[in-house]
Amino acid sequence: MSVPEVTPAEVYYPNEPAAPSVQTAEIPGPKTKKALEELAEVFDARCAYFVADYDKSVGNYIADVDGNVFLDVYAQIASIALGYNNPALIEAAKSDRMISALVQRPALGNFPSAEFADILKDILKVAPKGQTKLWSGLSGADANELAFKAVFMNYQAKKRGYNTSFTTEEETSVMENAIPGSPELAIMSFERAFHGRLFATASVTRSKPIHKLDMPSFHWPKAEFPSYKYPLEDNEAANKAEDERCLKIVEELYKTWHCPIAGLIVEPIQSEGGDNHGSTAFFQGLRDITLKYNSLLIMDEVQTGVAATGEMWAHERFNLSPPADLVTFSKKFQSAGYFYHDPELTPNLPYRQFNTWCGDPTKMIIAGAIAKEVVEKDLAKKISVVGDYLYAALAELSKKYPTEILNLRGKDRACFIAWDSPSPAARNAFLVNMKKNGVNIGGCAETGIRLRPTLTFGKKHADILIQAIDKTLGEN
Amino acid sequence: MSVPEVTPAEVYYPNEPAAPSVQTAEIPGPKTKKALEELAEVFDARCAYFVADYDKSVGNYIADVDGNVFLDVYAQIASIALGYNNPALIEAAKSDRMISALVQRPALGNFPSAEFADILKDILKVAPKGQTKLWSGLSGADANELAFKAVFMNYQAKKRGYNTSFTTEEETSVMENAIPGSPELAIMSFERAFHGRLFATASVTRSKPIHKLDMPSFHWPKAEFPSYKYPLEDNEAANKAEDERCLKIVEELYKTWHCPIAGLIVEPIQSEGGDNHGSTAFFQGLRDITLKYNSLLIMDEVQTGVAATGEMWAHERFNLSPPADLVTFSKKFQSAGYFYHDPELTPNLPYRQFNTWCGDPTKMIIAGAIAKEVVEKDLAKKISVVGDYLYAALAELSKKYPTEILNLRGKDRACFIAWDSPSPAARNAFLVNMKKNGVNIGGCAETGIRLRPTLTFGKKHADILIQAIDKTLGEN
Repeated sequence: MSVPEVTPAEVYYPNEPAAPSVQTAEIPGPKTKKALEELAEVFDARCAYFVADYDKSVGNYIADVDGNVFLDVYAQIASIALGYNNPALIEAAKSDRMISALVQRPALGNFPSAEFADILKDILKVAPKGQTKLWSGLSGADANELAFKAVFMNYQAKKRGYNTSFTTEEETSVMENAIPGSPELAIMSFERAFHGRLFATASVTRSKPIHKLDMPSFHWPKAEFPSYKYPLEDNEAANKAEDERCLKIVEELYKTWHCPIAGLIVEPIQSEGGDNHGSTAFFQGLRDITLKYNSLLIMDEVQTGVAATGEMWAHERFNLSPPADLVTFSKKFQSAGYFYHDPELTPNLPYRQFNTWCGDPTKMIIAGAIAKEVVEKDLAKKISVVGDYLYAALAELSKKYPTEILNLRGKDRACFIAWDSPSPAARNAFLVNMKKNGVNIGGCAETGIRLRPTLTFGKKHADILIQAIDKTLGEN
Repeated sequence: MSVPEVTPAEVYYPNEPAAPSVQTAEIPGPKTKKALEELAEVFDARCAYFVADYDKSVGNYIADVDGNVFLDVYAQIASIALGYNNPALIEAAKSDRMISALVQRPALGNFPSAEFADILKDILKVAPKGQTKLWSGLSGADANELAFKAVFMNYQAKKRGYNTSFTTEEETSVMENAIPGSPELAIMSFERAFHGRLFATASVTRSKPIHKLDMPSFHWPKAEFPSYKYPLEDNEAANKAEDERCLKIVEELYKTWHCPIAGLIVEPIQSEGGDNHGSTAFFQGLRDITLKYNSLLIMDEVQTGVAATGEMWAHERFNLSPPADLVTFSKKFQSAGYFYHDPELTPNLPYRQFNTWCGDPTKMIIAGAIAKEVVEKDLAKKISVVGDYLYAALAELSKKYPTEILNLRGKDRACFIAWDSPSPAARNAFLVNMKKNGVNIGGCAETGIRLRPTLTFGKKHADILIQAIDKTLGEN
C-alpha cells in the first residue's frame, strides 16, 4: 500500500479540528443572539446565521462566539478559497505591499503604483484560456456591470467605427438620457440566472423576486436555461432536445427583440438559481448564436471560478471558439473584475471605463496569492479527486434517502455539488438541522442544497459531511 | 509672540520633504513611460499621470518612479484623508483585526465577526447629525445605488404598508422586469451632478458626456443647480433669485414628471461638475419640497465628506430639519455606504438590501482609524484655519492674474477651493505646468481647477502651492 497522501489541509492547518463541536442546544446560541441585538441597533443584522469568531476558525472549520465549531461547506457564500487563517494569505496580508496599498489606496487609473503591473500579472497567470487583459472592479455585481459598459461601448463603436468621434447629437442627447447618445440596447440573460443586485445586474438577475422587488429595471430579454433530467446518463436524448429548445428561444429573441441585444450573460453553472448545469453543446451553441447576431458573450464566473469546479474556470470545459469575449470573476478571488482579449473591448478613449479607484490592489494581492497557491499545490486537481469521492458517497446516500436527496448534480465538477429537497420547508429544516449536527451548509433557489467548500476540503471532511447528512436525514 | 503651533503634518511626518523636487524635464518622466508601456499590455493605462512610488511618498508629498516628488493637492482624486504613509493608518493596517479581515473576508450579512459592531460604531461616532444607522458598500457609486434601492423599497412600502406582503402579481411581474413588481419610479438629480458611473448612478450623473456615452439609461428627471455670481457678497440679490428659479424647476418636475419621483440626490457642493456651491436657503428649500412631495432626500457626501470642507459633513451647515434621509460616503473614508435614521428605511424583510459581502471590514477599519484621528487631532478645525489662509492668498493672487483665476470659490469651506481658467486649453496646460513646478493638482468640469489636499495640509504647504501657481501663471 502506498504512503497516505498529505492533504492540502494537513499542510496548511496542522491544528485544524478533527471534527465539528456543537456546544449550544440551539443555533444561533445565546452569545450570538446577544451580539446580534447589539449589531441590530446600527446595521441590518436579520440575515446573520451566527456571529463568527474568526480567530478561532481554522481551515475548513468556522467557530462562533458561543464556542460552536462547524465544518464549513458554505465558506462565506462560496467565497473562501483556501480556508480560514491560511498561512499563505496571512503572509500576503502582512506584506509591505499590502500595508502600503491599505494605507494609501491609489486611484489606480491615474496614479498606479510601481508594483501594480506585477500584481495584475500574478492574477493573469491563471486567466482563462485566450484571455490576456483585465479590468478590475469591487464585487461580482460591479464586475458584471463594468462588463456591460464594455459591451455597450463596443457595440456602438462597431456601429460608428472604433476611432470615429461622437457626434454633437450624441454628446447632447446623452446628457438628457436620450437616444442616440444613450442608446436603447439590451443584455440577454436566462431564467433563474443570478448576476448581482445593482440596477443593471438586477435587470438580468431572474432567480427570486426578493432579489428585485420594487426596483425599476431595464426591459431586457430573458431566455430559458436548460432543465435537465437526472441522472444525465439515462436521459441523453431528452436533455439534448432540451438544449435545442433553449437555443431556439435564444435565437428567436435575437431575431425579434425590439432593440439590439449587445451582449448575452450566462453562468457556466447557474449557482444562486439552483445549480443548474448546461452542456458543452448548449454553451457552444450560445457561442455560435452570439457570433451570428454580432453580440458579445459574457461568462459570469463569479461563483464558479478559481478552481471551484475542478478547472480554474468552469467554462474552459466548453472549449469555446473563439473564447468568451468577457469573463467576470469575484468571490473565491476576493478581488473582482473581468478578463478579455479583444483590444477593441478597451474603449476608444480614456476616461470611459473609469472611476475613482478602478479596483482595489489589496484584494488583487490576495487574489494573486490565492492563484499562486492553487497552482503550486495543484488544488484544482486535488479538489476534483475529493469531489469524485464525495459525489459517489452522495449518490450512495441518495439510495438510502431517495425522497430526500433528489436530482443530485455536479458529477465531475469537484465539490461543486447540489441536490434538491422534496420541498422548501424540508430544505430549510435540513439547513438548520445540519448546523445542529456541526455543518454550516447553504441552499440555493427554493429547494436546492449546494456544497461550496474551500479548495482544501479533503476526504476526511467529506466523510464528516456524509455522516452529518446521514444523521440529519435519519432524524426525520 | 506665541510659540509656533505644531501642525498635524509635523506630528505625523517628521520626514516630510520641505519642498517638491522635480527631476525630469517632462512629466511623465522616462521611467513612468516605460512602466506604463508594460502596464498597458494588460490594463487600460491611458489615464495615468505618472507611476507612483508610494514607499517614498510622505504626508502631503507623492513621489513617482522617476524620483520626482510632488506636493499633492489632488490626493488620489480627493481620497487620501491624512496623507501618505500615515503612522496611525499603518498601525491599523498591521493590526490583528485587519489581518483577519483580509484573510477571511466575511459575508457580513450572514456571518459577521465578533468585532463588527465595534468597527461600525467607530464610524458612527462621526455620523452626520441625526443619523444613527448605516449600510455599507464598496464605492461611491455603489453607495448611491444602494441608497436608491432603499429609497425605492421605502416608497413602495409607504404605498402598500410597511408590513404588507407582496402580491402574487408583484412577485410574478418582477421576474419579467414589469410593473407592478418592478415599478416605474425615478430619482431626480441636477445638471452638472456627478454620482457615479454604474447604470442607475450614470442615469443621475450629468457632468460630462464621456461619463455616460453609449450606456442605456433610466429616463429620470434633471433639475437645475444654482449658478451663482462671484464674489457672493456682491451678488446677493441675483443669487437669491437664482435659488428661487432652481427650486421652482425642482417643484415643477415633481408636479409634472410622468412617474413618481421617489428620491432626490444632491451633492452639498457639486464636485466633479465644477465645484458648484448651493446656499443654505437652496438646500433647505430642497428639504421642504422633498417633504411636500413625499420624496426622500439623499445627500451625496462622497467627495465632500470627512472634514474636507471643514465640517465633518458638508451638509451639516445647512441645518436641515428633519435631517437628510440618507447620506452617502466614500473617498476620504476609503470605506463606502450610507447613513440613515428612519427604521423604515431598513426594508421590511431580510435579504432585500443584501449581497455577498455587504461591504468590506478592512476598509471600515481604515475609516474608523481616520475618524479617530480627525476627532483627536481636531483636523476639521485645523484644515479650516489653513483654508482661510489659503483662500485669502488665492484672492490676492487673483488680483495679479485677473484673467487667469476666475470665479474663485470655496470661502469658509476649508481647502475645498476651486476657480476657473479662461478656457479648457488654458486649464489643461495649467495642470500640466503645475506638475513641472512640483504640484500634483486636479481639474473639474471643463475649466475648473479644484484643490483637494489631505486634512494635514498646512500653511507651509499653502505657501508652496501659492508660489507654484504664481510661477506657473507668470510663465504664460
